[in-house]
Amino acid sequence: MRIVLASGSPRRKEILDQIGIKYDVCVSSADEHTIEKDPKKMVMLLSERKAMSVLKKLESGESGICDHPEEETFCVIGCDTVVYQENGNGILGKPRSEAEAFEMLNALQGGFHEVYSGVTILVSGLKTPVKRSFWERTVVHFSQMTDEEILEYIKTGDPMDKAGGYGIQGFCARYIEGIEGDYLNVVGLPARHLYSELKSLGAV
Amino acid sequence: MRIVLASGSPRRKEILDQIGIKYDVCVSSADEHTIEKDPKKMVMLLSERKAMSVLKKLESGESGICDHPEEETFCVIGCDTVVYQENGNGILGKPRSEAEAFEMLNALQGGFHEVYSGVTILVSGLKTPVKRSFWERTVVHFSQMTDEEILEYIKTGDPMDKAGGYGIQGFCARYIEGIEGDYLNVVGLPARHLYSELKSLGAV
Repeated sequence: MRIVLASGSPRRKEILDQIGIKYDVCVSSADEHTIEKDPKKMVMLLSERKAMSVLKKLESGESGICDHPEEETFCVIGCDTVVYQENGNGILGKPRSEAEAFEMLNALQGGFHEVYSGVTILVSGLKTPVKRSFWERTVVHFSQMTDEEILEYIKTGDPMDKAGGYGIQGFCARYIEGIEGDYLNVVGLPARHLYSELKSLGAV
Repeated sequence: MRIVLASGSPRRKEILDQIGIKYDVCVSSADEHTIEKDPKKMVMLLSERKAMSVLKKLESGESGICDHPEEETFCVIGCDTVVYQENGNGILGKPRSEAEAFEMLNALQGGFHEVYSGVTILVSGLKTPVKRSFWERTVVHFSQMTDEEILEYIKTGDPMDKAGGYGIQGFCARYIEGIEGDYLNVVGLPARHLYSELKSLGAV
């Protein structure tokens, strides 16, 4: 079975490398806009759209990954991750400006929030096509940050391409009190749960 | 103030790099044998021995880090990390053989254990010398592993230089259900707590 990651995120690739899973990459062209406000439903919905988009590319041969897609069994992994503050600003995406990054970090510092990743696995080419979707939740506790510390962190450039305006795997770790749940789920891919599903599907 | 890490561990160096702390390295010659069985006391004791050993090397000039140690203020960071199973095998160090690694992983799989890191910071060259010691605890939950999975993991070579026979930051992440506490504390250095202490000492 050929595993295909429907994401160009270097962090998701690093996670699959770390846990020893071999894969190809095909970036989805899925529409990532949604009015869904529930974080679990949102990440499941978007992960499914991404996986569907890539499966279509693979089956039509436009992915460029293989010459004879009709002879292959694909196991496509779509994933979406959001930061969520239940009694605050709801779902936080990537900041669109440094001012917005400041707002996000100021909302997160000194408290806790949740990170949800949704995963959809699509297996094609079997007699019965398979779809598995799940979500995973991790709670993250931030220590307090002064305005100067928030500005110093924004200057590193790290917040700008990350949901919630921070990356737990970078400089910002100096402000992470602790988490409850899967660490790699916060980085962008729930590794343990994903491995368990891939194993049960016979993909690894 | 010149920060000196009393450890040659590449993982501890990576953590300081990650959170943006500049430092030199001087490996301690401390005796790491102890009959202490309490994990908190043990990691504090060994972290202090390591920091003391390095401070002596620095002040005597034998560290090779600086030419005029009498003109410097050193902030030495000693650290020790252990894996602990309260209702099982107590403190687990590094496995001395593959058979011992198997025993350790078999004891950890399908349950939870604690990881303790102890840190001692020594600041020299001030009117009043400063010593700060603390410990940090993180709970780690493992999923179940088959004998074949344990042997596959041992074959990667990853377990042999790590307390408890695993590294959370590697291949083994596929078996980590989740944690409670600071992730980097499990990797080997409690980054958030350490940063907070260094800040209060004026070292960063």
